[in-house]
Amino acid sequence: MKTGNVPLFECEDFFIEYETGEIPWVKLFSKAGEKELSELEPGKRNRLFAAAMEIERIMLKLYNPAKINIASFGNYHPKVHLHVMARFEDDSFFPEPMWGQKQREGKQRDLQKEMFEHLLRLRLHKLFTAH
Amino acid sequence: MKTGNVPLFECEDFFIEYETGEIPWVKLFSKAGEKELSELEPGKRNRLFAAAMEIERIMLKLYNPAKINIASFGNYHPKVHLHVMARFEDDSFFPEPMWGQKQREGKQRDLQKEMFEHLLRLRLHKLFTAH
Repeated sequence: MKTGNVPLFECEDFFIEYETGEIPWVKLFSKAGEKELSELEPGKRNRLFAAAMEIERIMLKLYNPAKINIASFGNYHPKVHLHVMARFEDDSFFPEPMWGQKQREGKQRDLQKEMFEHLLRLRLHKLFTAH
Repeated sequence: MKTGNVPLFECEDFFIEYETGEIPWVKLFSKAGEKELSELEPGKRNRLFAAAMEIERIMLKLYNPAKINIASFGNYHPKVHLHVMARFEDDSFFPEPMWGQKQREGKQRDLQKEMFEHLLRLRLHKLFTAH
């Protein structure tokens, strides 16, 4: 399912990648490599959560998913990063998490990466210049 | 693994439960039953994230875990709730997420529920009365 990542956005504190796969899946990394979310300076953590909410809003608008899933694990690589995923009733794992048991052969979604990137840059520019 | 939930805390907007199982695992629910995190009124969403950070801080202090995992799925029950889990290298699923493939037979941790609840009430009281 995973075939590589595409850089989407970068600012002083974060970088964002599109995970190339079946569903819309975006990863948001803190560049400083803190281990746990609670270690982030509060303003930075608020911006990280706000960026995740912007990613969620774009996904809701662009893909009309059944549900947004968000996760912060990092057990393999203990550096703060969030996964934001648009889930669909007919995707390979629904209603299980993307790390759960495969339920069926899902089909490749139209990820509309260019439109996603365009909207993300607009919204994050606004978010990060407003702070 | 899952054998029941224990109520820990309740306020106007949220309730918090301890999931009885092998590892420290806390669930934080929005009482209004919004579907997606981005639907929460901003102040309420900030308090939800802040409460999750307090849960994380208590877990780091009390259990000395290898990593904290946080997730917002809701594919079965699409109402906003966060999972906060303390993970250990010898738990049943590490380094996979708790929804992934089982890796070994983990042992029951001492969940120190009473101490957890005591610390949680102290910190959340402070958090929710400061807003």
